Amino acid sequence: MSLLLGQIVDALGGELEGATRETRIARIAPLESAGPGDLSFLSNPRYQQQLAASQAACVIVAPALREQARQRGACIVAANPYAYFARATQLWRQAQGRGPVPGVHPSAVVHPDAQVDASAIIGPLCVVERGARIGAGTWLKSRVTVGEDCQVGARCILHSGVVVGADGFGFAPEDGAWVKIEQLGAVRIGDDVELGANTCVDRGALDDTVIEDGVKLDNLVQIGHNVHVGRHAAMAGCAGVAGSARIGAHCTVGGGGIVLGHLALADHVHVSAATTVTRSISQPGLYTGMFPADENAKWEKNAATLKQLHALRERIKALEQALKAT
Amino acid sequence: MSLLLGQIVDALGGELEGATRETRIARIAPLESAGPGDLSFLSNPRYQQQLAASQAACVIVAPALREQARQRGACIVAANPYAYFARATQLWRQAQGRGPVPGVHPSAVVHPDAQVDASAIIGPLCVVERGARIGAGTWLKSRVTVGEDCQVGARCILHSGVVVGADGFGFAPEDGAWVKIEQLGAVRIGDDVELGANTCVDRGALDDTVIEDGVKLDNLVQIGHNVHVGRHAAMAGCAGVAGSARIGAHCTVGGGGIVLGHLALADHVHVSAATTVTRSISQPGLYTGMFPADENAKWEKNAATLKQLHALRERIKALEQALKAT
Amino acid sequence: MSLLLGQIVDALGGELEGATRETRIARIAPLESAGPGDLSFLSNPRYQQQLAASQAACVIVAPALREQARQRGACIVAANPYAYFARATQLWRQAQGRGPVPGVHPSAVVHPDAQVDASAIIGPLCVVERGARIGAGTWLKSRVTVGEDCQVGARCILHSGVVVGADGFGFAPEDGAWVKIEQLGAVRIGDDVELGANTCVDRGALDDTVIEDGVKLDNLVQIGHNVHVGRHAAMAGCAGVAGSARIGAHCTVGGGGIVLGHLALADHVHVSAATTVTRSISQPGLYTGMFPADENAKWEKNAATLKQLHALRERIKALEQALKAT
Repeated sequence: MSLLLGQIVDALGGELEGATRETRIARIAPLESAGPGDLSFLSNPRYQQQLAASQAACVIVAPALREQARQRGACIVAANPYAYFARATQLWRQAQGRGPVPGVHPSAVVHPDAQVDASAIIGPLCVVERGARIGAGTWLKSRVTVGEDCQVGARCILHSGVVVGADGFGFAPEDGAWVKIEQLGAVRIGDDVELGANTCVDRGALDDTVIEDGVKLDNLVQIGHNVHVGRHAAMAGCAGVAGSARIGAHCTVGGGGIVLGHLALADHVHVSAATTVTRSISQPGLYTGMFPADENAKWEKNAATLKQLHALRERIKALEQALKAT
Repeated sequence: MSLLLGQIVDALGGELEGATRETRIARIAPLESAGPGDLSFLSNPRYQQQLAASQAACVIVAPALREQARQRGACIVAANPYAYFARATQLWRQAQGRGPVPGVHPSAVVHPDAQVDASAIIGPLCVVERGARIGAGTWLKSRVTVGEDCQVGARCILHSGVVVGADGFGFAPEDGAWVKIEQLGAVRIGDDVELGANTCVDRGALDDTVIEDGVKLDNLVQIGHNVHVGRHAAMAGCAGVAGSARIGAHCTVGGGGIVLGHLALADHVHVSAATTVTRSISQPGLYTGMFPADENAKWEKNAATLKQLHALRERIKALEQALKAT
Repeated sequence: MSLLLGQIVDALGGELEGATRETRIARIAPLESAGPGDLSFLSNPRYQQQLAASQAACVIVAPALREQARQRGACIVAANPYAYFARATQLWRQAQGRGPVPGVHPSAVVHPDAQVDASAIIGPLCVVERGARIGAGTWLKSRVTVGEDCQVGARCILHSGVVVGADGFGFAPEDGAWVKIEQLGAVRIGDDVELGANTCVDRGALDDTVIEDGVKLDNLVQIGHNVHVGRHAAMAGCAGVAGSARIGAHCTVGGGGIVLGHLALADHVHVSAATTVTRSISQPGLYTGMFPADENAKWEKNAATLKQLHALRERIKALEQALKAT
């Protein structure tokens, strides 16, 4: 597999400088490990010093770094080098010619009353239940379940093990036991959504759970019933959103982050990894809550003191008053 | 799909007031979004003000709210409105006539030495291994694995991707490597248990892992080997219980909560979301441990100070002594 | 199923004392619950007092406890009793004669261009994609996916629901949406690796994700793209390692522990359960960060004060200065 730089700029735009269109690219590689046949990129200006040292055949850079890049060697100048790099990986994948063939794998179990677009790809051992709808170009990789009446839009990717439309977790307590609340809603997933391996999106209790266009969820993410995830939100691995929470557009949740039930997050709220959100957040910004890791012995001392923190505050107050009185 | 109010009270009891038995119900809906053809419910007296404003055709209420509900319009009076609502969703599901048909889906792989009750439903692409037993009316949705010699009781629901009976995580260290401890126990699951999508219950090392009757586990929950989960306990998504822990009856664990290995939780212990339990708990009650989320800049300051908390306590002590000495 | 003590020491070594080689063992059992027909073990000297009380037919002990064990009854003396016990469970499993038969289950979907060793076991409903390689004696239990071009070494066990080689979570932001970065790398897994149920190991973005020999991962673990996990590292359930992190050899991560992206952990670093590592760690040792669980009312007070911790520190400073001035 290889591509010419000319093929790349023809497909993706950008200004090629310092190399001919015929220069052959063997690989796309990170700046620090790129060899003389490789295409690389510099997306974060903080790594500028790596630029000069890189052996890459060509580096994708922003206009502001054009001169610096030219001093080193060949470059492609693009407004958003990281997005350009992303599209280069897509071009690479296409050129490999290994894309999936539309259609339903013979081992998949698709209910006759499901609607699967002719351009969709239903991979091996997937299950598509009655009334489910799978949009154009959407790819269920392998061992994916899309439950009854759930909809998945166009150009989505559902990785192996994904479960869309399991019952939400709803039970009414009665006499010390739990009475099941049948989950009568479904799941509606927009276009260009990607769900990572073994991620779960539960069906709604009465209304639907909704994942809007462009949302990206990593592996092992849990989305509870009646959650609404706004456009282009993204969540890293092991994140969880409890029932009826409303996540705004363009929000992000770091790995292992949790949003409790019935909360609302405004657009552009960013939750750090391993952070639990217990109240609604109305202002955009970055939010964090996490006990910082430390050597265990130090943590033990600090954690023990933490259990007396409120009392310590009272002692500080008392000291302040005593000092005033002296 | 629709039901008459008369059909509902005939099936579930309760006193219908302010409407005829022939009133047709088009949907079950939450109080705030219910339309004039919908049945709704008021389970939490805190939402009383929503009652007057609701457009629902009929609202399920507790006896104490009978008068208030009657002023608005039609109601069904029931001792436990939330449980009544739950049963109404079950009635609705039944009336849809879409229940599963008992039997083994042709795509499932069931070992000839497994015992599957004739009324059980083994969904598409499930695996039931040698010696496993599946009880009456139990439903393995799709892509569920029940391992060798594991038992699942009656009327259970195992959602897609569940794995019952994978090996517990047991290894003996020797010369810097790990020697596998074969997991010779199995898993015993009682009646009326529900396991969420992609949830895992490991087999025991020597004895069995036990899930008692009526337990409800949400999605992506991890139950380690030799754990014992008592009757009617419930755990929300992404919760985890480490090996040999003993969870009492009626306990609950919030989303992402963790119970460490070999601990014992008394009956009626409730663990908040994102809380890690590191010691046994002998008293019923609610337990929490979680760094509250804050704006990142504030968190950074507080988290940095937290690493010196023990030293701060010493400084407070020193201040108190110095002040005493003045 | 039963074994003679003579068969055990013939296979595993150790010195049998106080019982004949013909003594029949019905079960392997923990010290406290072992009956008169059972083989047990004492690995942790802290449990010495349980030794005298045990009814086991024979107890595996270290040389230092030989006398004490002999006073009680029969014993096998072995240098590492816990590893000896582990091997005894393996012997037991073998003697049950229920080992898997090499070969590909007819329900599995194996691409014709995948290379599966003749001694490997591909269980029911597994998916092995184009270019994947499965080594000698490796066992994919059931419903396991090994993606395109991914390699799994020899003698590995992949439990049900494992996904090796789903796309890493890589997207470039552009105009408020996400541009997919095709994940062009693969996953390389060494020998003697065990992956728990529903665990995910993502393929690399440009280079490969690497799991070295002897690594053991529990259930529902998430390994991001381009992570490198060193030899004989082990991670408990629900742990997560974000992209490009480098975990040293012999490291352990407790249940629910998280290592953030691009960090490096030295060899022999141990991360406690529910701990998030936010910086690289260059020294071996045990690291912890977790808000200790407490009664909810106490936690609420302490957590509220925690949000003012930095301000409290300033007040302590002010007090110290004021006191100095008096």
